[in-house]
Amino acid sequence: MNNTPHHDHKEYHLQSSDVLTDIVIGMSDGLTVPFALAAGLTGAVVSNNIIVIAGVAEIAAGSIAMGLGGYLAGRTEIDHYNAELKREYEEVENVPEVEKEEVKDFFSDLGLSEEVQQKAVEEMTRDKDKWVDFMMKYELGLDKPNPKRARNSALNIGLSYAIGGLVPLSPYIFLDKPIEALKISALFTLICLFIFGFFKSKITGLNPWLGALRVTIIGALAAACAFAVAKLIEH
Amino acid sequence: MNNTPHHDHKEYHLQSSDVLTDIVIGMSDGLTVPFALAAGLTGAVVSNNIIVIAGVAEIAAGSIAMGLGGYLAGRTEIDHYNAELKREYEEVENVPEVEKEEVKDFFSDLGLSEEVQQKAVEEMTRDKDKWVDFMMKYELGLDKPNPKRARNSALNIGLSYAIGGLVPLSPYIFLDKPIEALKISALFTLICLFIFGFFKSKITGLNPWLGALRVTIIGALAAACAFAVAKLIEH
Repeated sequence: MNNTPHHDHKEYHLQSSDVLTDIVIGMSDGLTVPFALAAGLTGAVVSNNIIVIAGVAEIAAGSIAMGLGGYLAGRTEIDHYNAELKREYEEVENVPEVEKEEVKDFFSDLGLSEEVQQKAVEEMTRDKDKWVDFMMKYELGLDKPNPKRARNSALNIGLSYAIGGLVPLSPYIFLDKPIEALKISALFTLICLFIFGFFKSKITGLNPWLGALRVTIIGALAAACAFAVAKLIEH
Repeated sequence: MNNTPHHDHKEYHLQSSDVLTDIVIGMSDGLTVPFALAAGLTGAVVSNNIIVIAGVAEIAAGSIAMGLGGYLAGRTEIDHYNAELKREYEEVENVPEVEKEEVKDFFSDLGLSEEVQQKAVEEMTRDKDKWVDFMMKYELGLDKPNPKRARNSALNIGLSYAIGGLVPLSPYIFLDKPIEALKISALFTLICLFIFGFFKSKITGLNPWLGALRVTIIGALAAACAFAVAKLIEH
Protein backbone atom coordinates (compact mmCIF):
# COMPACT_ATOMS: atom_id res chain seq x y z
CA MET A 1 0.00 0.00 0.00
CA ASN A 2 1.23 3.51 -0.69
CA ASN A 3 0.07 7.11 -0.80
CA THR A 4 0.17 7.79 -4.54
CA PRO A 5 -3.20 7.82 -6.29
CA HIS A 6 -3.86 4.17 -6.99
CA HIS A 7 -4.83 4.73 -10.60
CA ASP A 8 -1.43 6.15 -11.70
CA HIS A 9 0.33 3.62 -9.55
CA LYS A 10 -1.44 0.77 -11.31
CA GLU A 11 -0.70 2.14 -14.77
CA TYR A 12 2.99 2.32 -13.94
CA HIS A 13 2.99 -1.30 -12.80
CA LEU A 14 1.18 -2.49 -15.88
CA GLN A 15 3.57 -0.79 -18.30
CA SER A 16 6.75 -2.07 -16.73
CA SER A 17 5.36 -5.57 -16.46
CA ASP A 18 4.30 -5.52 -20.13
CA VAL A 19 7.91 -5.22 -21.33
CA LEU A 20 9.13 -7.68 -18.71
CA THR A 21 6.38 -10.12 -19.64
CA ASP A 22 7.50 -9.94 -23.29
CA ILE A 23 11.16 -10.56 -22.43
CA VAL A 24 10.25 -13.33 -19.99
CA ILE A 25 8.03 -15.03 -22.59
CA GLY A 26 10.61 -14.72 -25.38
CA MET A 27 13.66 -15.70 -23.34
CA SER A 28 12.09 -18.66 -21.57
CA ASP A 29 10.89 -20.24 -24.78
CA GLY A 30 14.10 -19.25 -26.58
CA LEU A 31 16.22 -20.99 -23.98
CA THR A 32 13.97 -24.02 -23.54
CA VAL A 33 12.86 -25.16 -26.99
CA PRO A 34 16.12 -24.87 -29.02
CA PHE A 35 17.93 -26.47 -26.06
CA ALA A 36 15.55 -29.40 -26.09
CA LEU A 37 15.73 -29.68 -29.88
CA ALA A 38 19.54 -29.78 -29.82
CA ALA A 39 19.45 -32.35 -27.01
CA GLY A 40 16.97 -34.45 -28.96
CA LEU A 41 19.08 -34.42 -32.11
CA THR A 42 22.14 -35.32 -30.02
CA GLY A 43 20.17 -38.33 -28.76
CA ALA A 44 19.56 -39.35 -32.37
CA VAL A 45 23.34 -39.09 -33.06
CA VAL A 46 23.07 -36.47 -35.79
CA SER A 47 26.15 -34.39 -36.76
CA ASN A 48 26.76 -31.00 -35.12
CA ASN A 49 26.37 -29.38 -38.52
CA ILE A 50 22.77 -30.57 -38.83
CA ILE A 51 22.03 -29.68 -35.20
CA VAL A 52 23.20 -26.10 -35.84
CA ILE A 53 21.10 -25.85 -39.04
CA ALA A 54 18.04 -27.25 -37.26
CA GLY A 55 18.66 -24.93 -34.30
CA VAL A 56 19.05 -21.80 -36.40
CA ALA A 57 15.99 -22.70 -38.49
CA GLU A 58 14.03 -23.20 -35.28
CA ILE A 59 15.24 -19.86 -33.85
CA ALA A 60 14.33 -18.02 -37.07
CA ALA A 61 10.90 -19.65 -37.17
CA GLY A 62 10.28 -19.26 -33.44
CA SER A 63 11.24 -15.60 -33.24
CA ILE A 64 9.11 -14.73 -36.28
CA ALA A 65 6.14 -16.74 -34.99
CA MET A 66 6.44 -15.30 -31.47
CA GLY A 67 7.39 -11.77 -32.57
CA LEU A 68 4.64 -11.48 -35.17
CA GLY A 69 2.28 -13.28 -32.79
CA GLY A 70 3.06 -10.62 -30.17
CA TYR A 71 2.58 -7.85 -32.72
CA LEU A 72 -0.80 -9.14 -33.82
CA ALA A 73 -1.95 -9.75 -30.24
CA GLY A 74 -1.14 -6.10 -29.51
CA ARG A 75 -2.90 -4.85 -32.63
CA THR A 76 -5.90 -7.04 -31.87
CA GLU A 77 -6.11 -5.56 -28.38
CA ILE A 78 -6.16 -2.01 -29.81
CA ASP A 79 -8.72 -2.84 -32.54
CA HIS A 80 -10.93 -4.54 -29.98
CA TYR A 81 -10.71 -1.60 -27.56
CA ASN A 82 -11.57 0.96 -30.27
CA ALA A 83 -14.51 -1.10 -31.59
CA GLU A 84 -15.95 -1.44 -28.07
CA LEU A 85 -15.33 2.28 -27.36
CA LYS A 86 -17.30 3.26 -30.47
CA ARG A 87 -20.12 0.91 -29.46
CA GLU A 88 -20.28 2.30 -25.92
CA TYR A 89 -20.52 5.89 -27.21
CA GLU A 90 -23.35 4.86 -29.52
CA GLU A 91 -25.19 3.07 -26.73
CA VAL A 92 -24.82 5.99 -24.31
CA GLU A 93 -26.27 8.18 -27.09
CA ASN A 94 -29.06 5.87 -28.27
CA VAL A 95 -30.15 3.84 -25.24
CA PRO A 96 -29.06 5.95 -22.23
CA GLU A 97 -31.67 4.31 -19.96
CA VAL A 98 -30.27 0.83 -20.60
CA GLU A 99 -26.73 2.06 -19.96
CA LYS A 100 -27.82 3.86 -16.77
CA GLU A 101 -29.34 0.59 -15.59
CA GLU A 102 -25.95 -1.11 -16.18
CA VAL A 103 -24.15 1.55 -14.12
CA LYS A 104 -26.74 1.00 -11.39
CA ASP A 105 -26.20 -2.78 -11.59
CA PHE A 106 -22.49 -2.22 -10.96
CA PHE A 107 -23.13 -0.24 -7.76
CA SER A 108 -25.84 -2.68 -6.75
CA ASP A 109 -23.38 -5.59 -7.15
CA LEU A 110 -21.03 -3.75 -4.77
CA GLY A 111 -23.77 -4.03 -2.14
CA LEU A 112 -24.62 -0.32 -1.94
CA SER A 113 -28.10 0.80 -0.86
CA GLU A 114 -30.78 1.89 -3.35
CA GLU A 115 -30.33 5.53 -2.30
CA VAL A 116 -26.54 5.61 -2.84
CA GLN A 117 -26.92 3.64 -6.10
CA GLN A 118 -29.26 6.24 -7.54
CA LYS A 119 -27.12 9.19 -6.49
CA ALA A 120 -23.98 7.54 -7.85
CA VAL A 121 -25.66 6.82 -11.19
CA GLU A 122 -26.88 10.40 -11.42
CA GLU A 123 -23.38 11.85 -10.81
CA MET A 124 -21.62 9.23 -12.92
CA THR A 125 -23.73 9.81 -16.04
CA ARG A 126 -23.49 13.62 -16.11
CA ASP A 127 -20.25 13.64 -18.16
CA LYS A 128 -20.47 11.41 -21.24
CA ASP A 129 -16.70 10.80 -21.53
CA LYS A 130 -16.37 9.79 -17.89
CA TRP A 131 -19.46 7.63 -18.24
CA VAL A 132 -18.06 5.79 -21.28
CA ASP A 133 -14.65 5.41 -19.56
CA PHE A 134 -16.44 3.85 -16.62
CA MET A 135 -18.37 1.43 -18.83
CA MET A 136 -15.19 0.41 -20.67
CA LYS A 137 -13.30 -0.28 -17.49
CA TYR A 138 -15.89 -1.75 -15.15
CA GLU A 139 -18.54 -3.22 -17.40
CA LEU A 140 -16.22 -4.63 -20.05
CA GLY A 141 -13.01 -4.83 -18.00
CA LEU A 142 -10.94 -3.16 -20.74
CA ASP A 143 -7.98 -0.87 -19.99
CA LYS A 144 -6.91 1.63 -22.65
CA PRO A 145 -4.05 -0.12 -24.54
CA ASN A 146 -0.80 1.68 -25.30
CA PRO A 147 -0.66 2.27 -29.12
CA LYS A 148 3.12 1.68 -29.28
CA ARG A 149 2.66 -1.55 -27.38
CA ALA A 150 1.98 -3.77 -30.43
CA ARG A 151 5.22 -2.87 -32.20
CA ASN A 152 7.35 -2.94 -29.05
CA SER A 153 5.89 -6.24 -27.99
CA ALA A 154 6.85 -7.85 -31.30
CA LEU A 155 10.43 -6.60 -31.12
CA ASN A 156 10.85 -7.57 -27.46
CA ILE A 157 9.50 -11.09 -27.83
CA GLY A 158 11.26 -11.85 -31.12
CA LEU A 159 14.66 -10.54 -30.02
CA SER A 160 14.44 -12.22 -26.61
CA TYR A 161 13.64 -15.52 -28.27
CA ALA A 162 16.62 -15.27 -30.64
CA ILE A 163 19.06 -14.26 -27.88
CA GLY A 164 17.76 -17.00 -25.60
CA GLY A 165 18.09 -19.58 -28.39
CA LEU A 166 21.75 -18.81 -29.13
CA VAL A 167 22.78 -19.89 -25.60
CA PRO A 168 22.03 -23.61 -25.97
CA LEU A 169 23.14 -23.64 -29.61
CA SER A 170 26.57 -21.98 -29.40
CA PRO A 171 28.49 -25.02 -28.03
CA TYR A 172 27.37 -26.97 -31.11
CA ILE A 173 28.88 -24.26 -33.32
CA PHE A 174 32.31 -24.36 -31.64
CA LEU A 175 32.68 -28.05 -30.79
CA ASP A 176 32.84 -31.14 -33.01
CA LYS A 177 31.26 -33.96 -31.04
CA PRO A 178 27.51 -33.61 -30.33
CA ILE A 179 27.72 -35.32 -26.91
CA GLU A 180 30.51 -32.94 -25.78
CA ALA A 181 28.53 -29.94 -27.02
CA LEU A 182 25.42 -31.21 -25.21
CA LYS A 183 27.25 -31.29 -21.87
CA ILE A 184 28.36 -27.65 -22.15
CA SER A 185 25.03 -26.61 -23.68
CA ALA A 186 23.12 -28.18 -20.78
CA LEU A 187 25.41 -26.53 -18.20
CA PHE A 188 25.08 -23.04 -19.75
CA THR A 189 21.38 -23.31 -20.49
CA LEU A 190 20.38 -24.63 -17.06
CA ILE A 191 22.41 -21.86 -15.36
CA CYS A 192 20.69 -19.27 -17.58
CA LEU A 193 17.27 -20.78 -16.90
CA PHE A 194 17.99 -20.67 -13.17
CA ILE A 195 19.07 -16.99 -13.24
CA PHE A 196 16.18 -16.08 -15.53
CA GLY A 197 13.67 -17.98 -13.35
CA PHE A 198 15.05 -16.22 -10.29
CA PHE A 199 14.44 -12.71 -11.65
CA LYS A 200 11.14 -13.68 -13.24
CA SER A 201 9.85 -14.80 -9.82
CA LYS A 202 11.30 -11.74 -8.10
CA ILE A 203 9.39 -9.49 -10.52
CA THR A 204 6.11 -11.33 -10.03
CA GLY A 205 6.56 -11.29 -6.24
CA LEU A 206 6.99 -15.02 -5.69
CA ASN A 207 9.73 -16.94 -3.88
CA PRO A 208 12.67 -16.45 -6.31
CA TRP A 209 14.55 -19.65 -5.34
CA LEU A 210 11.48 -21.81 -5.81
CA GLY A 211 10.68 -20.05 -9.10
CA ALA A 212 14.24 -20.51 -10.36
CA LEU A 213 14.03 -24.23 -9.58
CA ARG A 214 10.68 -24.57 -11.37
CA VAL A 215 11.90 -22.93 -14.58
CA THR A 216 15.12 -24.98 -14.58
CA ILE A 217 13.22 -28.23 -14.09
CA ILE A 218 10.90 -27.48 -17.04
CA GLY A 219 13.93 -26.92 -19.29
CA ALA A 220 15.68 -30.06 -18.12
CA LEU A 221 12.52 -32.18 -18.48
CA ALA A 222 11.80 -30.91 -21.98
CA ALA A 223 15.38 -31.65 -23.08
CA ALA A 224 15.44 -35.10 -21.44
CA CYS A 225 12.13 -35.99 -23.04
CA ALA A 226 13.23 -34.81 -26.49
CA PHE A 227 16.49 -36.78 -26.11
CA ALA A 228 14.56 -39.95 -25.12
CA VAL A 229 11.94 -39.60 -27.86
CA ALA A 230 14.57 -39.01 -30.57
CA LYS A 231 16.58 -42.01 -29.37
CA LEU A 232 13.42 -44.18 -29.45
CA ILE A 233 12.48 -43.15 -32.99
CA GLU A 234 16.03 -43.54 -34.30
CA HIS A 235 16.39 -47.14 -33.11
CA MET B 1 -25.70 -5.90 -23.96
CA ASN B 2 -28.12 -8.26 -22.26
CA ASN B 3 -30.39 -8.59 -19.27
CA THR B 4 -28.45 -11.10 -17.17
CA PRO B 5 -26.53 -9.66 -14.21
CA HIS B 6 -23.27 -8.48 -15.75
CA HIS B 7 -21.12 -10.18 -13.13
CA ASP B 8 -22.21 -13.74 -13.98
CA HIS B 9 -22.18 -12.88 -17.64
CA LYS B 10 -18.54 -11.77 -17.44
CA GLU B 11 -17.46 -14.88 -15.51
CA TYR B 12 -19.01 -17.08 -18.18
CA HIS B 13 -17.14 -15.25 -20.92
CA LEU B 14 -13.83 -15.48 -19.09
CA GLN B 15 -14.11 -19.22 -18.50
CA SER B 16 -14.95 -20.12 -22.06
CA SER B 17 -12.25 -17.84 -23.43
CA ASP B 18 -9.64 -19.35 -21.04
CA VAL B 19 -9.96 -22.79 -22.66
CA LEU B 20 -10.13 -21.31 -26.13
CA THR B 21 -7.09 -19.15 -25.43
CA ASP B 22 -5.16 -22.27 -24.37
CA ILE B 23 -6.12 -24.19 -27.50
CA VAL B 24 -5.44 -21.19 -29.72
CA ILE B 25 -1.99 -20.68 -28.15
CA GLY B 26 -1.05 -24.36 -28.35
CA MET B 27 -2.38 -25.03 -31.83
CA SER B 28 -1.00 -21.89 -33.46
CA ASP B 29 2.53 -22.51 -32.19
CA GLY B 30 2.18 -26.25 -32.81
CA LEU B 31 1.25 -25.67 -36.44
CA THR B 32 3.71 -22.85 -37.08
CA VAL B 33 7.03 -23.81 -35.48
CA PRO B 34 7.33 -27.52 -36.46
CA PHE B 35 6.17 -26.55 -39.96
CA ALA B 36 8.92 -23.93 -40.23
CA LEU B 37 11.49 -26.31 -38.75
CA ALA B 38 10.62 -29.02 -41.28
CA ALA B 39 10.71 -26.46 -44.10
CA GLY B 40 14.10 -25.21 -42.90
CA LEU B 41 15.59 -28.69 -42.78
CA THR B 42 14.17 -29.36 -46.24
CA GLY B 43 16.04 -26.25 -47.41
CA ALA B 44 19.23 -27.73 -46.00
CA VAL B 45 18.58 -30.98 -47.93
CA VAL B 46 18.52 -33.25 -44.91
CA SER B 47 16.89 -36.70 -45.15
CA ASN B 48 13.21 -37.16 -44.23
CA ASN B 49 14.30 -39.47 -41.42
CA ILE B 50 16.21 -36.68 -39.68
CA ILE B 51 13.41 -34.17 -40.32
CA VAL B 52 10.94 -36.50 -38.60
CA ILE B 53 13.32 -37.02 -35.64
CA ALA B 54 13.90 -33.27 -35.33
CA GLY B 55 10.17 -32.59 -35.67
CA VAL B 56 9.15 -35.13 -33.05
CA ALA B 57 11.89 -33.89 -30.67
CA GLU B 58 10.63 -30.33 -31.18
CA ILE B 59 7.00 -31.37 -30.59
CA ALA B 60 7.94 -33.25 -27.40
CA ALA B 61 10.01 -30.31 -26.14
CA GLY B 62 7.48 -27.68 -27.20
CA SER B 63 4.46 -29.40 -25.69
CA ILE B 64 6.28 -29.97 -22.38
CA ALA B 65 7.61 -26.40 -22.30
CA MET B 66 4.25 -24.88 -23.21
CA GLY B 67 2.16 -27.33 -21.16
CA LEU B 68 4.26 -27.03 -18.01
CA GLY B 69 4.56 -23.30 -18.67
CA GLY B 70 0.77 -23.08 -18.76
CA TYR B 71 0.48 -25.17 -15.59
CA LEU B 72 2.94 -23.00 -13.67
CA ALA B 73 1.35 -19.78 -14.92
CA GLY B 74 -1.97 -21.05 -13.56
CA ARG B 75 -0.46 -22.12 -10.22
CA THR B 76 1.34 -18.78 -9.94
CA GLU B 77 -1.94 -16.96 -10.48
CA ILE B 78 -3.59 -18.94 -7.66
CA ASP B 79 -0.64 -18.47 -5.25
CA HIS B 80 -0.55 -14.77 -5.99
CA TYR B 81 -4.30 -14.39 -5.44
CA ASN B 82 -4.21 -16.24 -2.11
CA ALA B 83 -1.20 -14.27 -0.83
CA GLU B 84 -2.90 -10.96 -1.69
CA LEU B 85 -6.19 -12.14 -0.18
CA LYS B 86 -4.48 -12.92 3.13
CA ARG B 87 -2.76 -9.53 3.09
CA GLU B 88 -6.00 -7.67 2.40
CA TYR B 89 -7.76 -9.41 5.33
CA GLU B 90 -4.85 -8.47 7.61
CA GLU B 91 -4.92 -4.86 6.42
CA VAL B 92 -8.68 -4.54 6.85
CA GLU B 93 -8.17 -5.88 10.39
CA ASN B 94 -5.07 -3.84 11.33
CA VAL B 95 -5.30 -0.56 9.41
CA PRO B 96 -9.02 -0.18 8.62
CA GLU B 97 -8.72 3.62 8.27
CA VAL B 98 -6.07 3.31 5.53
CA GLU B 99 -8.20 0.74 3.71
CA LYS B 100 -11.30 2.91 4.04
CA GLU B 101 -9.34 5.78 2.47
CA GLU B 102 -8.49 3.49 -0.47
CA VAL B 103 -12.16 2.60 -0.96
CA LYS B 104 -12.92 6.34 -0.88
CA ASP B 105 -10.16 7.00 -3.45
CA PHE B 106 -11.82 4.52 -5.79
CA PHE B 107 -15.18 6.30 -5.62
CA SER B 108 -13.43 9.67 -5.84
CA ASP B 109 -11.63 8.55 -9.02
CA LEU B 110 -15.03 7.70 -10.50
CA GLY B 111 -15.89 11.40 -10.09
CA LEU B 112 -18.57 10.97 -7.39
CA SER B 113 -19.30 13.81 -4.95
CA GLU B 114 -17.88 13.88 -1.42
CA GLU B 115 -21.29 13.06 0.03
CA VAL B 116 -21.85 9.96 -2.12
CA GLN B 117 -18.23 8.87 -1.59
CA GLN B 118 -18.67 8.87 2.17
CA LYS B 119 -21.99 7.03 2.10
CA ALA B 120 -20.61 4.43 -0.32
CA VAL B 121 -17.53 3.84 1.87
CA GLU B 122 -19.71 3.47 4.95
CA GLU B 123 -21.97 0.87 3.30
CA MET B 124 -19.09 -0.89 1.53
CA THR B 125 -17.04 -1.46 4.68
CA ARG B 126 -19.84 -2.85 6.87
CA ASP B 127 -19.29 -6.45 5.74
CA LYS B 128 -15.62 -7.52 5.92
CA ASP B 129 -15.86 -10.23 3.27
CA LYS B 130 -17.57 -7.91 0.79
CA TRP B 131 -15.01 -5.24 1.61
CA VAL B 132 -12.04 -7.53 0.95
CA ASP B 133 -13.67 -8.82 -2.25
CA PHE B 134 -14.02 -5.23 -3.38
CA MET B 135 -10.36 -4.41 -2.62
CA MET B 136 -9.17 -7.54 -4.44
CA LYS B 137 -11.15 -6.76 -7.54
CA TYR B 138 -11.00 -2.98 -7.84
CA GLU B 139 -7.84 -1.97 -5.99
CA LEU B 140 -5.65 -4.85 -7.15
CA GLY B 141 -7.57 -5.83 -10.28
CA LEU B 142 -7.51 -9.54 -9.35
CA ASP B 143 -10.33 -11.92 -10.24
CA LYS B 144 -10.71 -15.12 -8.21
CA PRO B 145 -8.87 -17.79 -10.26
CA ASN B 146 -10.45 -21.15 -10.94
CA PRO B 147 -8.45 -23.77 -8.95
CA LYS B 148 -8.78 -26.41 -11.69
CA ARG B 149 -7.56 -23.89 -14.24
CA ALA B 150 -3.82 -24.58 -13.74
CA ARG B 151 -4.11 -28.29 -14.50
CA ASN B 152 -6.57 -27.85 -17.36
CA SER B 153 -4.48 -25.11 -18.92
CA ALA B 154 -1.42 -27.37 -19.01
CA LEU B 155 -3.31 -30.22 -20.65
CA ASN B 156 -5.03 -27.97 -23.18
CA ILE B 157 -1.89 -26.16 -24.29
CA GLY B 158 0.36 -29.23 -24.38
CA LEU B 159 -2.12 -31.41 -26.27
CA SER B 160 -3.02 -28.65 -28.71
CA TYR B 161 0.66 -28.10 -29.46
CA ALA B 162 1.27 -31.80 -30.13
CA ILE B 163 -1.81 -32.18 -32.34
CA GLY B 164 -0.95 -29.01 -34.25
CA GLY B 165 2.63 -30.19 -34.76
CA LEU B 166 1.65 -33.53 -36.30
CA VAL B 167 -0.06 -31.80 -39.24
CA PRO B 168 3.08 -30.35 -40.89
CA LEU B 169 5.16 -33.39 -39.94
CA SER B 170 3.01 -36.24 -41.22
CA PRO B 171 3.88 -35.89 -44.94
CA TYR B 172 7.56 -36.39 -43.99
CA ILE B 173 6.62 -39.66 -42.28
CA PHE B 174 4.82 -41.10 -45.30
CA LEU B 175 6.88 -39.75 -48.20
CA ASP B 176 10.51 -40.29 -49.18
CA LYS B 177 11.69 -37.04 -50.80
CA PRO B 178 11.87 -33.98 -48.51
CA ILE B 179 10.86 -31.53 -51.25
CA GLU B 180 7.75 -33.60 -52.10
CA ALA B 181 6.82 -33.81 -48.42
CA LEU B 182 7.32 -30.04 -48.04
CA LYS B 183 4.79 -29.31 -50.81
CA ILE B 184 2.07 -31.40 -49.16
CA SER B 185 3.07 -30.22 -45.68
CA ALA B 186 2.80 -26.57 -46.76
CA LEU B 187 -0.60 -27.17 -48.38
CA PHE B 188 -2.07 -28.94 -45.32
CA THR B 189 -0.53 -26.59 -42.77
CA LEU B 190 -1.53 -23.38 -44.51
CA ILE B 191 -5.10 -24.65 -44.90
CA CYS B 192 -5.17 -25.53 -41.18
CA LEU B 193 -3.69 -22.15 -40.23
CA PHE B 194 -6.35 -20.44 -42.34
CA ILE B 195 -9.23 -22.39 -40.75
CA PHE B 196 -7.74 -21.96 -37.28
CA GLY B 197 -7.14 -18.22 -37.82
CA PHE B 198 -10.72 -17.86 -39.04
CA PHE B 199 -12.25 -19.34 -35.89
CA LYS B 200 -9.74 -17.59 -33.63
CA SER B 201 -10.82 -14.23 -35.05
CA LYS B 202 -14.50 -15.14 -34.91
CA ILE B 203 -14.13 -15.92 -31.19
CA THR B 204 -12.33 -12.66 -30.44
CA GLY B 205 -14.90 -10.67 -32.41
CA LEU B 206 -12.66 -9.53 -35.26
CA ASN B 207 -13.08 -9.86 -39.01
CA PRO B 208 -12.57 -13.64 -39.49
CA TRP B 209 -11.30 -13.46 -43.09
CA LEU B 210 -8.69 -10.84 -42.25
CA GLY B 211 -7.66 -12.80 -39.14
CA ALA B 212 -7.37 -16.03 -41.13
CA LEU B 213 -5.13 -14.27 -43.65
CA ARG B 214 -2.91 -12.84 -40.89
CA VAL B 215 -2.33 -16.19 -39.18
CA THR B 216 -1.64 -17.92 -42.50
CA ILE B 217 0.89 -15.25 -43.52
CA ILE B 218 2.79 -15.58 -40.21
CA GLY B 219 3.10 -19.33 -40.74
CA ALA B 220 4.22 -18.95 -44.36
CA LEU B 221 6.75 -16.21 -43.46
CA ALA B 222 8.25 -18.22 -40.61
CA ALA B 223 8.65 -21.29 -42.87
CA ALA B 224 10.08 -19.28 -45.77
CA CYS B 225 12.56 -17.56 -43.44
CA ALA B 226 13.65 -20.85 -41.85
CA PHE B 227 14.07 -22.38 -45.33
CA ALA B 228 16.20 -19.42 -46.48
CA VAL B 229 18.34 -19.30 -43.31
CA ALA B 230 19.01 -23.04 -43.39
CA LYS B 231 19.96 -22.86 -47.07
CA LEU B 232 22.35 -19.97 -46.35
CA ILE B 233 24.10 -21.77 -43.49
CA GLU B 234 24.36 -25.01 -45.39
CA HIS B 235 26.14 -23.46 -48.37
